[in-house]
Amino acid sequence: MRATVLYAPGDVRFEERDAPKITAPTDAIVRLSATCVCGSDLWPYRGLNPVPRPTPMGHEYCGIVEEVGRAITSVRPGQFVIGSFFASDNTCPHCLAGYQTSCQHREPVGGAQAPLLRVPLADGTLVATPEVPPDDLVPGLLAASDVLGTGWFAAVAADVKPGKTVAVVGDGAVGLLGVLSAKQMGAGRIIAMSRHEPRQKLAREFGATDVVTERGDAGVARIKELTRGVGADSVLECVGTAESMRQAIQSTRPGGAVGFVGVPHGVQLDGQELFYTHVRLHGGPAPVRRFLPELIGLVWSRTIEPGKVFDLTLPLEKVAEGYRAMDERRAIKALLRP
Amino acid sequence: MRATVLYAPGDVRFEERDAPKITAPTDAIVRLSATCVCGSDLWPYRGLNPVPRPTPMGHEYCGIVEEVGRAITSVRPGQFVIGSFFASDNTCPHCLAGYQTSCQHREPVGGAQAPLLRVPLADGTLVATPEVPPDDLVPGLLAASDVLGTGWFAAVAADVKPGKTVAVVGDGAVGLLGVLSAKQMGAGRIIAMSRHEPRQKLAREFGATDVVTERGDAGVARIKELTRGVGADSVLECVGTAESMRQAIQSTRPGGAVGFVGVPHGVQLDGQELFYTHVRLHGGPAPVRRFLPELIGLVWSRTIEPGKVFDLTLPLEKVAEGYRAMDERRAIKALLRP
Repeated sequence: MRATVLYAPGDVRFEERDAPKITAPTDAIVRLSATCVCGSDLWPYRGLNPVPRPTPMGHEYCGIVEEVGRAITSVRPGQFVIGSFFASDNTCPHCLAGYQTSCQHREPVGGAQAPLLRVPLADGTLVATPEVPPDDLVPGLLAASDVLGTGWFAAVAADVKPGKTVAVVGDGAVGLLGVLSAKQMGAGRIIAMSRHEPRQKLAREFGATDVVTERGDAGVARIKELTRGVGADSVLECVGTAESMRQAIQSTRPGGAVGFVGVPHGVQLDGQELFYTHVRLHGGPAPVRRFLPELIGLVWSRTIEPGKVFDLTLPLEKVAEGYRAMDERRAIKALLRP
Repeated sequence: MRATVLYAPGDVRFEERDAPKITAPTDAIVRLSATCVCGSDLWPYRGLNPVPRPTPMGHEYCGIVEEVGRAITSVRPGQFVIGSFFASDNTCPHCLAGYQTSCQHREPVGGAQAPLLRVPLADGTLVATPEVPPDDLVPGLLAASDVLGTGWFAAVAADVKPGKTVAVVGDGAVGLLGVLSAKQMGAGRIIAMSRHEPRQKLAREFGATDVVTERGDAGVARIKELTRGVGADSVLECVGTAESMRQAIQSTRPGGAVGFVGVPHGVQLDGQELFYTHVRLHGGPAPVRRFLPELIGLVWSRTIEPGKVFDLTLPLEKVAEGYRAMDERRAIKALLRP
């Protein structure tokens, strides 16, 4: 098969590789219906994370089970399934507590920008849809694999409640789906922080009631102004830089919560500053597995349409163009069809 | 009157000062029945916080209302009252949300190691007891002013729930009363981290089921061992150093919570480390006012006996000896009688 490999910053190749095989009785092989490029793929693409060796890329996936190891009981060949970026047994104490991305036996899933993918711990990781979906549902189901699950977790971690005021820092796909998630959870007011017109538009479609274009201290001041000096009840941090984290914390009311899901890069938090803000802080790699059954249901019933974040669709072999378009912010998120 | 003034590290004087007067219609003057030395008073006493000028000391108090400003309606002369270290209006949005120590009009209360104290915003700050208490209840009521309220907030912030496993980092008065608070909230297992025999004993009296003497990485390893590798559900951080904060975070299970109430000194949190621990973090200056009615009720009904943390009682004029005894860890906490 041909698949995606990152050789160095900016150097994405689509080249011949061995097709994956079952290597453990708990594995499954999935033939992907769709995959995509993640905002986090851009960290090494931009040289902000090292690329020590040629690396198979991709960790968002959905498709048809092709083959399963002999220990697998919960999915079978022919089913359409969705999984996420960490494989988890879904039986250990951390999984049972809903933190499958901290599973005691977790394994990263990698190399999903390809036609075929090996998923370890498939019984704990994969969730099947009621039947093979119509083609127009595939983008929404693919979104559930990571970017929707992550925005959803940001809203859960930020303790979004009906009627409350929510601010979202970051207008990437995760931030936009954080807006959708907050809306779905009944937030009364949703302030999207964005200065890009097409993203503002999508934020409003997803439920944003206000858009703030200012950043940093000016952004914080604007949030305070919109909330009569109080601050937001819940803030979703969907970027991962020192500035975005600071902006999120400072925009939150005392006793309010920040849900942070942008992988922190160069973020140091001052203990005393955090102490005096009275802010609650929770985040980490989203335990998407916890939310998958609910999210699949919402997509399946056409209650939500998270697939709208894919504003560029390419054949998988054009994957390098997907990276370029996202890097240059010409696209929010690129969907790839094997 | 004679009152306590810190001139420089180690230099506590008990000297003549003007008695406080009503300066705003929202003030009250309280004749103190008891006051005490706080762990946080030791930061400047030890030279770890600067002492730029002679500073009247003390912020824990209870006693009889002597005089009130003309705007005061909720307390009257002759009543026994308790307040805390920040005066708050108890009507602003932050107060109504239960974060009175972030009150939009908050004022520090200072100079309580004295016979008389001016309390600003007295209507919002002071809570009266049902009647003037018998003398043996005074230490418990004084504890509610800060050290019990702070331990209680640590347990609330760490989301202590019935049946859950709680660890407490710090065996000062706040940590010990964090143990008592966790017990009162129904924790199933309470692990006190202490290497001082008299404090271990009091921790057990207050409800600790286990005592861990190891610190740092060894302390974390011991907590993991006691919880079958999972970590504690809730950890109360009652010290405020970089090491104690790290120990608290690392001892918590993914999805568990750290309540931190030790004022952070030199604490920097790495964003990525926090991200991958999946820990929930909440703390700050305890909004004692939120809890005062409930805590007074528990002391009044003799359900709890938090006054046991005072293992040294001195006449107020011996205040310098109280500082010395706490600094040298000869006493957990010194109660002062004016």
